[in-house]
Amino acid sequence: MSVHDLIRDVARRPLSSLLSGLESGRWQAEDLLSACYGNADRHDDRGNQVYTARFEATARAEAEAADGLRKAGVPMAPLSGLPINLKALFDVAGQVTHAGSKGWMAPATSDAVIVQRLRRAGAVLTGHTNMTEFAYSGLGLNPHYGTPDNPLAPGRIPGGSSTGAAVAVALGLSVAGIGTDTGGSVRIPAALNGLVGFKPSQRRIPRDGTLPLSDSLDSIGPIARTVDCCDRLDAVLAGEERALTTALPLRGRRFAVPINHMMSDLSPLVALRFDASLRRLRDAGAVVEEVRVPVLDSLPELLAGGGFTAAESYYVHRQWLADHGDDYDPRVRSRIVRGADITAADYLNLLERRRVRAAEADRWLASYDGLLAPTVAVEPPTFAELADDDAYTRLNLLVLRNPTVANLLDLCAISLPNHEPGGLPTGLMLVGRNGHDHRLLALARSLEPLMGAAGSAAPGDR
Amino acid sequence: MSVHDLIRDVARRPLSSLLSGLESGRWQAEDLLSACYGNADRHDDRGNQVYTARFEATARAEAEAADGLRKAGVPMAPLSGLPINLKALFDVAGQVTHAGSKGWMAPATSDAVIVQRLRRAGAVLTGHTNMTEFAYSGLGLNPHYGTPDNPLAPGRIPGGSSTGAAVAVALGLSVAGIGTDTGGSVRIPAALNGLVGFKPSQRRIPRDGTLPLSDSLDSIGPIARTVDCCDRLDAVLAGEERALTTALPLRGRRFAVPINHMMSDLSPLVALRFDASLRRLRDAGAVVEEVRVPVLDSLPELLAGGGFTAAESYYVHRQWLADHGDDYDPRVRSRIVRGADITAADYLNLLERRRVRAAEADRWLASYDGLLAPTVAVEPPTFAELADDDAYTRLNLLVLRNPTVANLLDLCAISLPNHEPGGLPTGLMLVGRNGHDHRLLALARSLEPLMGAAGSAAPGDR
Repeated sequence: MSVHDLIRDVARRPLSSLLSGLESGRWQAEDLLSACYGNADRHDDRGNQVYTARFEATARAEAEAADGLRKAGVPMAPLSGLPINLKALFDVAGQVTHAGSKGWMAPATSDAVIVQRLRRAGAVLTGHTNMTEFAYSGLGLNPHYGTPDNPLAPGRIPGGSSTGAAVAVALGLSVAGIGTDTGGSVRIPAALNGLVGFKPSQRRIPRDGTLPLSDSLDSIGPIARTVDCCDRLDAVLAGEERALTTALPLRGRRFAVPINHMMSDLSPLVALRFDASLRRLRDAGAVVEEVRVPVLDSLPELLAGGGFTAAESYYVHRQWLADHGDDYDPRVRSRIVRGADITAADYLNLLERRRVRAAEADRWLASYDGLLAPTVAVEPPTFAELADDDAYTRLNLLVLRNPTVANLLDLCAISLPNHEPGGLPTGLMLVGRNGHDHRLLALARSLEPLMGAAGSAAPGDR
Repeated sequence: MSVHDLIRDVARRPLSSLLSGLESGRWQAEDLLSACYGNADRHDDRGNQVYTARFEATARAEAEAADGLRKAGVPMAPLSGLPINLKALFDVAGQVTHAGSKGWMAPATSDAVIVQRLRRAGAVLTGHTNMTEFAYSGLGLNPHYGTPDNPLAPGRIPGGSSTGAAVAVALGLSVAGIGTDTGGSVRIPAALNGLVGFKPSQRRIPRDGTLPLSDSLDSIGPIARTVDCCDRLDAVLAGEERALTTALPLRGRRFAVPINHMMSDLSPLVALRFDASLRRLRDAGAVVEEVRVPVLDSLPELLAGGGFTAAESYYVHRQWLADHGDDYDPRVRSRIVRGADITAADYLNLLERRRVRAAEADRWLASYDGLLAPTVAVEPPTFAELADDDAYTRLNLLVLRNPTVANLLDLCAISLPNHEPGGLPTGLMLVGRNGHDHRLLALARSLEPLMGAAGSAAPGDR
């Protein structure tokens, strides 16, 4: 296979296929890395909008190490030789964890725990990818580095806050990305880029060395082409030496579709596709119940005044705002500073109310195999729609609304591409109980073939 | 530093110093590996008595990978570039897990879990090391591969069953070894080679891919120069991303010294050194209580008829004995076949009695910071003393007696070198409660400077 073919090819292959090719010697880790950086050179022509920093020297060394070990017959580590990008809020020794800000921060002196785990698992870490400043918004606009265009729908937003992590995969600039999800920041860009995004139960993955947005809600998760890819990445991120999950039969499974909170203001296209996927699921023998889910009606009060994210991000940013406030994106700064007005008592009360609601959600979900909803209520908005602040605020809240349910109620959730080839990218979300992540991944494997998924087509092939 | 100097030097340095030298560029992982293999060529002149197999190609690739990553600025993995040997009962893909037998087994197709963990942590795996056949004896004699001489006391046995794992470290053929301990098989060769050997609480370290002797008693542990070395290795073996332990003040700590079971038949030299170390411990402010420990009187009945080891090894070996019985060391075969006569009811009764005794030991140990005893009741016997089977049986039981306490009662334990430079090697053992391994390591750090330890002198330097 020529390097030219590989460059087009790498963008479409799931990790299992890339690993097989490495194992058989069909390609080398260095070829994959060259393909990804070559694609970055080709696509990223408006500056550093996808990769804000490339880790060229260490990535080359990691690829060479992977190739050398494999050639010597050392059994392959689970992510050996796979070029993976990191949202720019994970500490990487020697790199600035700018988190989408202008870069006034100091370089990190050590690796985040998940970065250590990826390295130990043989990953080739390609670079830091662009994001909404400090991860505070689901749309993905960044005034400092620029906002990448949507690879599947030009003129439309790519989603965020793990913007570059998803765009890099969609464009073949890496084969997977690692992001964080506080209210949908992994699942939204996954859905808007035709990819799978997984938000695990928060406690499964340590956040040491990860710049926080909201300590209560932040979860670390992968963005990649398939459920199997996310499963492999999740095992490494969680430090689990486990077998991969396997698909479960769908016949007789019970899924809940909430008629309240998550189904209002759907765009006609999203509603149409969601209904079609439910039909296919019923045809496969699953029971899909459209039901009122009382706990969801309590969520707006947990978000009032900015909720956890405002309170906890203000705690992190207070001194930085004093020193560098003028360097912040005004749309981000205004959201953080709301936290200044939240009292300790209100915050403690919020913690308690959330504990009660999460327990209620867990009891309620115990009767079902999962909850289904569109990941994002609308297809990707155009950049033009977001020009004024009111539209930005309204669309940001609408885009975040469905994914945020899993963060507020401390659940796990996965977004699957649910659109026909060439169509506007939209996602279907499966939500599961806290700690039942392996089961969620197994069920997602069963749902995946029923989706109208096209996400894996590289833009050059459309 | 010349390679010649390094060859002598590597044998004496603890892992922390080797890692610092790698980090500063004073030496490379490839230098360390060449030094170890060079020492092996120099010392191992009677055949393959220490390394029964060298993993040259993969070890070179691992060293090169470690060097390449470090030069590119990738933060170092915890064991990056350190040449470590494996007792020949751990599966290594492509190698025969002969476990000290003649080698009629098939090559392993994958790595043991602990081998995977060592590789992920950057270790350079140098080879499989010699052992008592199927780990069944604490003396270390092996008629198939030969028995290495004791590096610190020529003409005397090296101890077993992790014989080569310890001898390789004492001779500078690797900087640490990984063994298994069913009744002392890590701690005995550590004590008899002037090294530290750690038997963790069994459940902390997974045994997948490790050829079992006794499923109830087998524990996986490191042999190295210092407590700090064992601490670093243990964290990797246990899959713990933890800080290293730190020494604890000794003033006011309470240690128990049992007057029953573990103190009979001590050699005069072992008794003298043990008493001297207790005196130094009291001088440091610790409380040392010589007490009767009732639970120890119950141990002989748990060992009757071969106990767990005979019952569980016979289960493993039944078919192999039928197919290859003539290839077994007769001293090993005769011990395994005792298991054929143990009934299921007796075995279930044994399991229950052990549960009761382990709980009793845990309650008893809760009042103390640890139990102290000589690791082995005698200095290393000479080869001549073991010529007849009666002497072999008597000395094997005496050598195993003290270490076996920790296996039977499901505790953790560590052996520290306790002898003056150039003297016959003997060890002191600290035993702790199940699951309190980090505390045991921390206390061992405090005891270590009080020992009459000389173990780190390479034989060429005496």
